[in-house]
Amino acid sequence: MSKRIGVLGGGSWGTALGILLANKGYDVHMWLRDENQIMDMNETRINNKYLPDITLPSNLKLTNDLEKVNFNKDAIVLSVGTHGIREVLNNCKSYIKKDQIIVNVSKGIENQSLLRISEIVEEIVPNSRYTVLSGPSHAEEVAKNMPTTVVSASKSKEVAQYVQDLFITPSFRVYTNPDVIGVELGGALKNIIALGAGISDGSGWGDNTKAALMTRGIYEMARLGEKMGAQASTFLGLAGIGDLIVTCTSMLSRNRRAGILIGKGIKVEDAIKEIGMVVEGIKTTKSTFDLSKKYNIDMPIAEELYGVLYEGKDVKNSVSSLMVRDKKHEMENIVLENNNLW
Amino acid sequence: MSKRIGVLGGGSWGTALGILLANKGYDVHMWLRDENQIMDMNETRINNKYLPDITLPSNLKLTNDLEKVNFNKDAIVLSVGTHGIREVLNNCKSYIKKDQIIVNVSKGIENQSLLRISEIVEEIVPNSRYTVLSGPSHAEEVAKNMPTTVVSASKSKEVAQYVQDLFITPSFRVYTNPDVIGVELGGALKNIIALGAGISDGSGWGDNTKAALMTRGIYEMARLGEKMGAQASTFLGLAGIGDLIVTCTSMLSRNRRAGILIGKGIKVEDAIKEIGMVVEGIKTTKSTFDLSKKYNIDMPIAEELYGVLYEGKDVKNSVSSLMVRDKKHEMENIVLENNNLW
Repeated sequence: MSKRIGVLGGGSWGTALGILLANKGYDVHMWLRDENQIMDMNETRINNKYLPDITLPSNLKLTNDLEKVNFNKDAIVLSVGTHGIREVLNNCKSYIKKDQIIVNVSKGIENQSLLRISEIVEEIVPNSRYTVLSGPSHAEEVAKNMPTTVVSASKSKEVAQYVQDLFITPSFRVYTNPDVIGVELGGALKNIIALGAGISDGSGWGDNTKAALMTRGIYEMARLGEKMGAQASTFLGLAGIGDLIVTCTSMLSRNRRAGILIGKGIKVEDAIKEIGMVVEGIKTTKSTFDLSKKYNIDMPIAEELYGVLYEGKDVKNSVSSLMVRDKKHEMENIVLENNNLW
Repeated sequence: MSKRIGVLGGGSWGTALGILLANKGYDVHMWLRDENQIMDMNETRINNKYLPDITLPSNLKLTNDLEKVNFNKDAIVLSVGTHGIREVLNNCKSYIKKDQIIVNVSKGIENQSLLRISEIVEEIVPNSRYTVLSGPSHAEEVAKNMPTTVVSASKSKEVAQYVQDLFITPSFRVYTNPDVIGVELGGALKNIIALGAGISDGSGWGDNTKAALMTRGIYEMARLGEKMGAQASTFLGLAGIGDLIVTCTSMLSRNRRAGILIGKGIKVEDAIKEIGMVVEGIKTTKSTFDLSKKYNIDMPIAEELYGVLYEGKDVKNSVSSLMVRDKKHEMENIVLENNNLW
């Protein structure tokens, strides 16, 4: 029997993955909150709001009923913004069966609680068969079958491999990875660096400057990650530098585009309005700033961004204040290896 | 007394660094092979061939005499293409004093011998005070004082710090690093990945595809590096992903531009002609292909590129044949950490 999949959320990423799964021949049921959007999509067979130009396959069905989207499904894909996940999961937890696979594809850290998404899921649906799917994967390109690579990370090797088989196609390559913490943090934290990279671009700095920010950024991410139980090597992989690269260099990235506007001197609120979709990195900056205090990790880039986004710090001084820090040994605090050559 | 520096080579990078050092108040002597170029530069005070728009400071002097450029210098900067270094060093080794610092800023691996530049230097000038300066640093942007970061790597901490102090300015940040092998390999191997990234762009693939190539590329580089004695963490730093990012995403990169032309179907020889400067990555691909055989390391991206550049393999099939490889654990062979979560 063909696999049956539920997709929670009809943004660009949820829609692209729903299409990919339906094109593999699975029965896909996608849940959207907005009835008007469902009516429009049923009529046009296109998600005009978030993924124009791509036709929805006939075996991709839409609903705004959380019971229906969970009923009798082998797996559900969680594609809701970080700060909507708790509510959606609470509303459908009674419909989720024990053996149902949960594939999270959202990236963020909850404000206040500072929880990763697997931790929110664990609170609401304990002991679930949870996987996070992450990597350099703009929805628009996946929908056009551009060659794309991601990782499927789970505490359980069997679950990670199940999800690998579920999603893999000739142009969508899925690697497995056991490091859920690292993969979740990589996906969340990279949005902060993308904001910073955008600000650098918007301020008129060069490619050298942006590459420096990105490199020092992944270093910050890896250090915080290690303190939180992740493996540093994950940050060297697709969910780390891979996702960082695509987010910091592509104009398809909302976080980067918001940064560019802010770098040009546009107010944060106005930049968000102009993007018109969730700019996850702005909330993640707050969570990460709080995490850096909680774990006592020096995170200069996250701190500068927090200053710009939440304390009205002048953008122009931001990049330069990162540059005039003390001269240092490059890998001063990282514990990737124990052997020190000097 | 002001420091006295010799710069061997008048390409864009040698010129930019010569200007930076002269602007710090040092006496800089730059050696160029071409007398006509020297005459032109003395007349216009601009390196019209390699770094137009930037005026040479008056304390930057030009010569084509190898004895003069080495005479009474505290440090010499080696900025000659990899395959010219042996000849230039042989011609000036009798002028190099024991305590003179040698700062290599070139990136490559010699064909046939498969030697890194520090190894070539060691053959010709044994026991020298050698440093390699590397990182994401397009000459054009350094000459315009765009914020830039690099690493100074040496077996000797004292020498690495001397070179850090020599080059550092408020917009040119120098970090130290003890891993000469990793820093040299990072700078050399990234040119291969930049060719591949260019080919991906030129073939019309997306940002997802390029990020995948770059991520899998740095993984290949780190694996070969570890086998050759480098520290994997170096590839996570400025001389690794930093330089990789800037080279793969900027139009200032000759290697990427050559790749784009090749991806569009232009013949390799014609692409090189159109770029008009050394495309170091083409020779480095051959060296790396040979190194992967020597050290018995699986390097799919380097192999594909070798096929395209040296065996007439069809570019169109190249990216796709990388994509249909077996599904795998992401970090299958890397030894960054010993603990495996599964």
